[in-house]
Amino acid sequence: MGFATEDGQNFLRYDSSTRTTGGRVDLERLLAPVVPGKIVAVGLNYRDHAREMAHEIPKEPVLFIKPSTAVIGPGEAIRYPSQSSRVDYEAELAVVIGRTCKDAPAASARDFILGYTCFNDVTARDLQAKDGQWTRAKSFDTFAPLGPWIVTDLHDPHDLELTARVNGEIRQSSSTANLIFNSFDLVEFVSHVMTLNPGDVIATGTPAGIGPMNRGDEVEIGIQGIGVLRNPVV
Amino acid sequence: MGFATEDGQNFLRYDSSTRTTGGRVDLERLLAPVVPGKIVAVGLNYRDHAREMAHEIPKEPVLFIKPSTAVIGPGEAIRYPSQSSRVDYEAELAVVIGRTCKDAPAASARDFILGYTCFNDVTARDLQAKDGQWTRAKSFDTFAPLGPWIVTDLHDPHDLELTARVNGEIRQSSSTANLIFNSFDLVEFVSHVMTLNPGDVIATGTPAGIGPMNRGDEVEIGIQGIGVLRNPVV
Repeated sequence: MGFATEDGQNFLRYDSSTRTTGGRVDLERLLAPVVPGKIVAVGLNYRDHAREMAHEIPKEPVLFIKPSTAVIGPGEAIRYPSQSSRVDYEAELAVVIGRTCKDAPAASARDFILGYTCFNDVTARDLQAKDGQWTRAKSFDTFAPLGPWIVTDLHDPHDLELTARVNGEIRQSSSTANLIFNSFDLVEFVSHVMTLNPGDVIATGTPAGIGPMNRGDEVEIGIQGIGVLRNPVV
Repeated sequence: MGFATEDGQNFLRYDSSTRTTGGRVDLERLLAPVVPGKIVAVGLNYRDHAREMAHEIPKEPVLFIKPSTAVIGPGEAIRYPSQSSRVDYEAELAVVIGRTCKDAPAASARDFILGYTCFNDVTARDLQAKDGQWTRAKSFDTFAPLGPWIVTDLHDPHDLELTARVNGEIRQSSSTANLIFNSFDLVEFVSHVMTLNPGDVIATGTPAGIGPMNRGDEVEIGIQGIGVLRNPVV
């Protein structure tokens, strides 16, 4: 037994054996669809974002790691840490690994991918600049909203509209077609460094339009064909 | 039933209820004493090493994360990746967390620490310089040798001789007394960013004398009161 939804707000019972939907159910809340062993994230992977950060287009992906303790699910609050006065959203397509993967070529990356979900690579922009290394700025508890679910049958993960909205207003609007290194390239690149295990996540980077969230805001990361990941900021 | 050793090479049976040792046992090999959920590592945390890297003494710890997939135990081989031609040892004192920890003050850090072990923060120095971000250079499989065991009753973790040897020759020789931020400071600093869970490791940084290892070398990280972590390089 599962749940079916078209709008991400209303859920129907779903029987996968008969492929039929039943009555409406009230779900208390959705949890993050996976707690990854590791989140390997990529910086500056959209041409427009590299430009807005005044960086050259990287010749290779630039990696950093976010800890699994930062993961929250849909509806959970992103908490402003006392150390920062500038916390930004970053809308990203997240790849969820389904099979253990080491030294995979891009051409067979699909075999190792379970599916895709939305990710908000929340970043304390002031600490990112101060530290040089990005880890602290991106590792606070609640800084890795993930969800609302994993879509396993996307036809083409590299032709999807991607948006970030703050209080309903569009702040980022791009397409995964603008990725410098796409999901398959990244599975190849990352798995030539480290073994990827089932449940591990690759966060593929964010397009132009990054900016701050404030306490009281609601932020939404939407990806065409996947859904909307909505979180309040407190 | 456990094992007792004085030299890290020969093991006797040990009965913890009667506190008596029995006959010698042959252990096939030791595994890493913990597979951490995350390894939070600190850069430039010895004054002498900050100088050799031509960095200022940091006012706050600089953090990065190494993935648990990089962990190997005593005797396991550090593998040179094809992407690098300069892989370095870095001798470090590792703190193993024993209780879930968030916003802990340094004064109560001991309550959250299970014990201490040796750590080799293996680093592809050429990739570290190339990427700017340190993550890729430090995240290859086998780049986190950990062990040989966790010592839970160190009298003072901040007055211990620390050495790295390559093929028996001393390359790093310092004391944990030279840490800029000590274990307790780091538990405070890191736990104000992210929740630390049992088994998580804080790698406290390396002193001066970093340098390369080559294929065929044997590298040893030794810490007074803990033991020696020995790994071949292939």
